[in-house]
Amino acid sequence: MNLILISPEDFINAQTRIRLNDHRYTHVRNIHRAQVGDELNIGLIGGRIGTGKITSLTDSSLEMDIHLNQQPPPPLPVTLILALPRPNILKRSLQAASAMGVKKIFLIHSARVEKSFWLSPTLRPERIRDQLLLGLEQGKDTILPEVELRPLFKPFAEDELPGLIRGTLPLVAHPQSPTPCPQSVGRPVTLLLGPEGGFVPFEIAKLSALGFQAIHLGSRILRVENAIVALLSKLY
Amino acid sequence: MNLILISPEDFINAQTRIRLNDHRYTHVRNIHRAQVGDELNIGLIGGRIGTGKITSLTDSSLEMDIHLNQQPPPPLPVTLILALPRPNILKRSLQAASAMGVKKIFLIHSARVEKSFWLSPTLRPERIRDQLLLGLEQGKDTILPEVELRPLFKPFAEDELPGLIRGTLPLVAHPQSPTPCPQSVGRPVTLLLGPEGGFVPFEIAKLSALGFQAIHLGSRILRVENAIVALLSKLY
Repeated sequence: MNLILISPEDFINAQTRIRLNDHRYTHVRNIHRAQVGDELNIGLIGGRIGTGKITSLTDSSLEMDIHLNQQPPPPLPVTLILALPRPNILKRSLQAASAMGVKKIFLIHSARVEKSFWLSPTLRPERIRDQLLLGLEQGKDTILPEVELRPLFKPFAEDELPGLIRGTLPLVAHPQSPTPCPQSVGRPVTLLLGPEGGFVPFEIAKLSALGFQAIHLGSRILRVENAIVALLSKLY
Repeated sequence: MNLILISPEDFINAQTRIRLNDHRYTHVRNIHRAQVGDELNIGLIGGRIGTGKITSLTDSSLEMDIHLNQQPPPPLPVTLILALPRPNILKRSLQAASAMGVKKIFLIHSARVEKSFWLSPTLRPERIRDQLLLGLEQGKDTILPEVELRPLFKPFAEDELPGLIRGTLPLVAHPQSPTPCPQSVGRPVTLLLGPEGGFVPFEIAKLSALGFQAIHLGSRILRVENAIVALLSKLY
């Protein structure tokens, strides 16, 4: 937890003092091993970041005087579209994307996505939000990414994708492509990652027709959560 | 499992037929849902890769005729040195490094590494090997990385590091550095990653004196397993 995220409900006076008594309190006490007078990094979800100075620390809560004077880091200009991965991979993928500054994520269906993945409790909004918050705490950011679910490939590809990719470089990670992932593109990207086993030919054809360039990351196949990090790291 | 790894013990005749009856059998049956006649990617640990055609599939084992005719992918010319991370992060870091083609890994002590991490069963050779094999299965490689443990920072830095970095570009990931990670360096690198909270000034001074260049990955702090992937992806 490089940044402790707070909400308006944590304030005990107008703008400057907060009280924490949940997992954040436990973390500050047991992991940071903080004392009264210590300063910690604080961010208001959806708002600014800054520091908090501990003014009181008891057996059940702590209070801090906070001073939020900086903007969160700039977002990555990426729309990330993932064929829905299996639940444990999804969790780590959401965390990694959130930590790296992605602000718009679509989870879509594709022929090789197991239908049962759509029934996973990991997709409940509060569970998705938990993973995104972990990513923000890690990456020292306060702006929650938006995550949208699209359980049908064809209407998404036909009705939404053309608008989404407008003004962006549309890339689809496809290990069979002869083109390596470009570096430091310096412009907005729509980045699509397929399921384990990849997109099927029909899907790749549809994406190519829309203007997507297929790219690869070398002969080694990475797990989705690592492929996201590797691709974003090359692109920006 | 993009590649099924086999050992000499799996052969039931000289060079061409294998029998599997362990977790690999279960995986082929339940995840690949393979049938007699199907071809799968096979690699001999430490040797070549190729394909195997299923010739028999029973309730408890399968047999394949294999044909290993390709070299594994080239290794990354990187020596990766990690301040020992907490056990669950270590597992994912070893998997990711192995999948990306790193062949030499040192796990070292540093002032901010919790001493208890050195007592984790995750550090047993067979447990380390399990993680490395998962990475090879993912990255379609057969060459196991070597992993060495160095529970004392100073003798490692003073006696071993000067020899290890010879002929390489020595880089240490340090979020406070003003220099971004270089891209596509096209030469061997010795890459050092610190613990959560980073190296202490004494350690950074020692590394700088040896010729290490401190580099950063932007204002966002990534978890070790993601930082490894992001750095290797930029460097190669």
